[in-house]
Amino acid sequence: MVDENRDMEGVGCGEEEAAAMEKVFEDTAVPSWTKQITIRSMVTSLVLSLVFNVIVCKLNLTTGIIPSLNVAAGLLGFAMVKSWTVLAEKSGLLRQPFTRQENCVIQTCVVASSGIAFSSGTGSYLLAMTPKIADPGSAAINVKELSVGWMIGFLFVVSFVGLFSIVPLRKVMILKYKLSYPSGTATAYLINSFHTPKGAKLAKKQVWCLFKSFVGSFLFACFKWFFSAGDGCGFDSFPTFGLQALKQRFNFDFSTTYVGVGMICPYMVNVSLLIGAILSWGVMWPLIQTKEGSWYEAGLRGGDIHGIQGYRIFIAISMMLGDGLFHVVYMVIVTVINFRAQQSLQKHVRDGMVEEQQIEDYDEKRRKKYFLKDQIPNAAAIVGYIVLAALSVVLIPVIFHQLKWYHILVAYSVAPVLAFCNAYGCGLTDWSLASNYGKLAILIFSSWVGLEHGGIVAGLASCGVMLSIVSTASDLMQDFKTGYLTLSSPRSMFFGQVYGTALGCVMSPLVFWFFYKAYDVGGKNSTYPAPFASMYRAMAKLGVEGFSSLPKHCLTLMIVFFVSAVVINLLIEILKIYDIKIYKFIPSPMCMAIPFYLGAYFAIDMCVGSLILFLWGRRNKKDAKDYGPAVASGLICGDSLWGIPGAILALSGVNSPMCMKFLSSSVNTKVDAFLKG
Amino acid sequence: MVDENRDMEGVGCGEEEAAAMEKVFEDTAVPSWTKQITIRSMVTSLVLSLVFNVIVCKLNLTTGIIPSLNVAAGLLGFAMVKSWTVLAEKSGLLRQPFTRQENCVIQTCVVASSGIAFSSGTGSYLLAMTPKIADPGSAAINVKELSVGWMIGFLFVVSFVGLFSIVPLRKVMILKYKLSYPSGTATAYLINSFHTPKGAKLAKKQVWCLFKSFVGSFLFACFKWFFSAGDGCGFDSFPTFGLQALKQRFNFDFSTTYVGVGMICPYMVNVSLLIGAILSWGVMWPLIQTKEGSWYEAGLRGGDIHGIQGYRIFIAISMMLGDGLFHVVYMVIVTVINFRAQQSLQKHVRDGMVEEQQIEDYDEKRRKKYFLKDQIPNAAAIVGYIVLAALSVVLIPVIFHQLKWYHILVAYSVAPVLAFCNAYGCGLTDWSLASNYGKLAILIFSSWVGLEHGGIVAGLASCGVMLSIVSTASDLMQDFKTGYLTLSSPRSMFFGQVYGTALGCVMSPLVFWFFYKAYDVGGKNSTYPAPFASMYRAMAKLGVEGFSSLPKHCLTLMIVFFVSAVVINLLIEILKIYDIKIYKFIPSPMCMAIPFYLGAYFAIDMCVGSLILFLWGRRNKKDAKDYGPAVASGLICGDSLWGIPGAILALSGVNSPMCMKFLSSSVNTKVDAFLKG
Repeated sequence: MVDENRDMEGVGCGEEEAAAMEKVFEDTAVPSWTKQITIRSMVTSLVLSLVFNVIVCKLNLTTGIIPSLNVAAGLLGFAMVKSWTVLAEKSGLLRQPFTRQENCVIQTCVVASSGIAFSSGTGSYLLAMTPKIADPGSAAINVKELSVGWMIGFLFVVSFVGLFSIVPLRKVMILKYKLSYPSGTATAYLINSFHTPKGAKLAKKQVWCLFKSFVGSFLFACFKWFFSAGDGCGFDSFPTFGLQALKQRFNFDFSTTYVGVGMICPYMVNVSLLIGAILSWGVMWPLIQTKEGSWYEAGLRGGDIHGIQGYRIFIAISMMLGDGLFHVVYMVIVTVINFRAQQSLQKHVRDGMVEEQQIEDYDEKRRKKYFLKDQIPNAAAIVGYIVLAALSVVLIPVIFHQLKWYHILVAYSVAPVLAFCNAYGCGLTDWSLASNYGKLAILIFSSWVGLEHGGIVAGLASCGVMLSIVSTASDLMQDFKTGYLTLSSPRSMFFGQVYGTALGCVMSPLVFWFFYKAYDVGGKNSTYPAPFASMYRAMAKLGVEGFSSLPKHCLTLMIVFFVSAVVINLLIEILKIYDIKIYKFIPSPMCMAIPFYLGAYFAIDMCVGSLILFLWGRRNKKDAKDYGPAVASGLICGDSLWGIPGAILALSGVNSPMCMKFLSSSVNTKVDAFLKG
Repeated sequence: MVDENRDMEGVGCGEEEAAAMEKVFEDTAVPSWTKQITIRSMVTSLVLSLVFNVIVCKLNLTTGIIPSLNVAAGLLGFAMVKSWTVLAEKSGLLRQPFTRQENCVIQTCVVASSGIAFSSGTGSYLLAMTPKIADPGSAAINVKELSVGWMIGFLFVVSFVGLFSIVPLRKVMILKYKLSYPSGTATAYLINSFHTPKGAKLAKKQVWCLFKSFVGSFLFACFKWFFSAGDGCGFDSFPTFGLQALKQRFNFDFSTTYVGVGMICPYMVNVSLLIGAILSWGVMWPLIQTKEGSWYEAGLRGGDIHGIQGYRIFIAISMMLGDGLFHVVYMVIVTVINFRAQQSLQKHVRDGMVEEQQIEDYDEKRRKKYFLKDQIPNAAAIVGYIVLAALSVVLIPVIFHQLKWYHILVAYSVAPVLAFCNAYGCGLTDWSLASNYGKLAILIFSSWVGLEHGGIVAGLASCGVMLSIVSTASDLMQDFKTGYLTLSSPRSMFFGQVYGTALGCVMSPLVFWFFYKAYDVGGKNSTYPAPFASMYRAMAKLGVEGFSSLPKHCLTLMIVFFVSAVVINLLIEILKIYDIKIYKFIPSPMCMAIPFYLGAYFAIDMCVGSLILFLWGRRNKKDAKDYGPAVASGLICGDSLWGIPGAILALSGVNSPMCMKFLSSSVNTKVDAFLKG
């Protein structure tokens, strides 16, 4: 999940800012905003949006952990347009040079559309409504079958609201409060660096690296396919640590995607995942399973949440909620303190008591000039918001008859405030808490509507509304920051965001549909377990049913893990305040919770990624830093892209020709005897 | 096979000889010959001899292709003694510094003992005598069961004769004819370089590289073991190119040994192997198999040489014989021409018509001085030869009652001449043709003795006699050259060779016995098919039976391949004379013949090794050159060393816990149904 990932990032790239970066670009003309949006950039955005939608969709459906794909998007966008311009230049057709503003528009657009791939909830709230994820006994009102039509409609209605709600605040947040937006800043520096001669050379090498690992990863994914006929076949089921460990989902499954993800995520994230995996699948679940028949009914289906699966889901949820709640509260406190400090500073400045501290340097002056050049009228934004809100109030109850018009109205009155909070917090810490607001919405709306009136679907749908508004708002502000630092016009940024969002609203359901039809999405032992779908549904159930339906001792365990998540986070913050470095070695509760449900395999993949990066760094620190993210992006893109031909093969009923099977020695003897006679 | 490998090397390192290498060592004292032989060097030799005996034995029993292990031996010897001396130095116990002469003794000793591992014929002539390799219908007189006792005895009797036969000629060959001995020279330069400060640093890094790839390869071999319960299980049977290709033995079997071997062998060797594999297993055998029932009887056992197996073996043999015969004739011609030129030069010098061309430089003067310092009396050599010959004449007929005393006498009268020819030719071209002399001996003696008098065993035994004499003689001369270039005393070299030979005579049968008892050595589909054992036996059969027993058209095909081997070699030599560079791209017939019998899998492994080296070289030429051989040696040593624990596990009846099985999609469905119900 994009924000889960941003949790994991916390990149602070402010220190890279050398003085007077803009001096380098002094002689480079800045094109007008209409020239920043070119046909080639829109085509490039379209292609890359598709690629990233596939990747994000696949990640959503496998583990829900989505790393930052900004580097890959930046690099690929640069590579595509650059090779296009070089080609055009040679054939004498080039009308307009490739500028960093154009690059920035592509970046914005691609990030926006892959953002929708996450916030569209195809791996979480939408999928959670389906009969596949629901318990067999669910009432018809608490289940909704998916269809591409209403999904696209729903997304179009909810995904643009966030943009209009936050646009008027851009000057306050970027110019006045000077919020840092680490991801947006890092992206801006990346784009700026591409357009300096030295940067272009490095970028070229990085693109080459990305390409090689992309091809390697794609071919390897293709190779793996040949051996995966049937269940329990192929590299996915490779019992790296033995068959017993495989049963507890401890194995290395040769997924280059997650090796790449592991290379991008910080070491501590991967270690946290592994600790969580060992704690849950290594210790807790085996212990709880010994209580079968006493704590919970014996002989339940593997996926029944009244059995062991319930412990897995609800303990993970409680830990995530504890973590989320802590961060929401923490963010509110930080926001309020910071806000007050800003206000009093402004007041003092107005009163002439303090001089404006920041002396405007050359860079800042120039950036401010371009940022203020093209205006977006506030009136337009407000009108846009009201029109979209009105549309939503009418249309959403049509799509989800479980929700009434007043539910939507309430959601839309609260949303702008939350959107502002989230955008502000994200600007300070790079943490988007959108999914946490979504989870809260599930609990509130599902208990409000109630089980008999379809509270589960209502809760999940309102999660979608809230999530979309809040997450697109903070994305937009990140992009404004990037635009500010690359002298791109806010208008072209806004256009890029709108275009990308529109692409995302169409592509995301279509790509998802492809996977949904081709594979057993959400199946417990499937390649695409879509873990968050089950979790979101379980949350909605918790909202309507309360804690009564949980298996024995589950509530106690939930409380223990909820509290420990809060305590661990508190501990980290306290250690940070006193600057005690041990906090770096405390695992993140959010990360620890994910493998509770899924098993250790992807944590092991990711740790392999960490290991590779670590060894590479020991051999050559600079190379690892320069090319590590490019190689990782290539690994992710290549493997994920195999998803398309893989899905086509699955849809057209072509089975792999071979099965690589793993049998214990004794079973093998039996099978050999069977095959002979 | 050591000499097959030397065929493949042809390294010419003469150009590396910078002027006055000895200037660097001017201030380094040369210890007396007794000081060159130390206890630590003897212990090191013992340990390394064991390691290399295991490696060579394993290679003998798998494909019979043995790469040059000189680099590994040199590096490991250096590493062991160096770390020992550093340790001793720190604890104040070091009495004597580590000299290059000592290093040279270790090298000589290890190479000698692993030479015996080859010439002992545990993978060829000795194994060929056993009932395992023989046709089921063979008469008792044509079969001999192996036992460690007589094997050691036989080796002791035949392995020292070569040394004594060639010792008196060392001054003629090294000082007078100044033969180049490329391998010996390269080894000397390696050892010299280790003992210069810069060389020592590089050597340290190389050792570290070797160690890392050694550990990696060992662990991977261990990992592979876990998945190899039962036939057709594990990485060996990985159908990299599909199940159909696997049936024709086209697959990559993840053998790090052969990847390493491929990295050491020149590109053209690996390509030749692959061409041979495609020609035979890709084209010829499938075509011939369509004639089953017409060209040969249908429904024969897979290993019956009256069926398809006969074509495989005899076509391979005829190609090898063609290649061997060409080289023997060619070598005789070159030797005679060169010899005459030398003689006439000497005569002219003596007559005062020409001045001695080579002006003795500093290096040469110094080397000559030390080479002539310690003498080995000719009388001792001659007495040694006569005593050993007498012993052989008495003892060999006791071991092999199929051979009579006059057979041995004849062999021992011819052997010194052949030994001289071979040592001389090897000095010129780095090619030892020992195994070709051995093959000729099989044909001659087996037809002389005849089938009813045990001609097969007699031919194979006399092959052993000839092979041992001829190959140890050329090895010794190589070592003298190395000693000459490192200022080592001929006496210490001779001692090293004798010590190493003795070690080899004891270790080689013991190590072989280990494998022989633990695995199905010589089995057609076993991991240890020992291809040369079947071939040597087939040759002996050809000697006693003539061509009558061959399947239809086999003789025609044999003639075709025999002639093409000669023609290809002739073509190469002609192109070389006219300096047309295409000769580099003509595959070697010898190499092409090996996969005829074995299949493509090891050729594919070796090509992977070539590919790795090629890519590495493209990235960093110097690194690839400096560390490639070290990494390759590590890969070979690590994988081969797993042979010991692997054999222990097999002997103690411990089976692997899992089977990685490869089933076609349809069979998999059946197996799944079987396992469920």
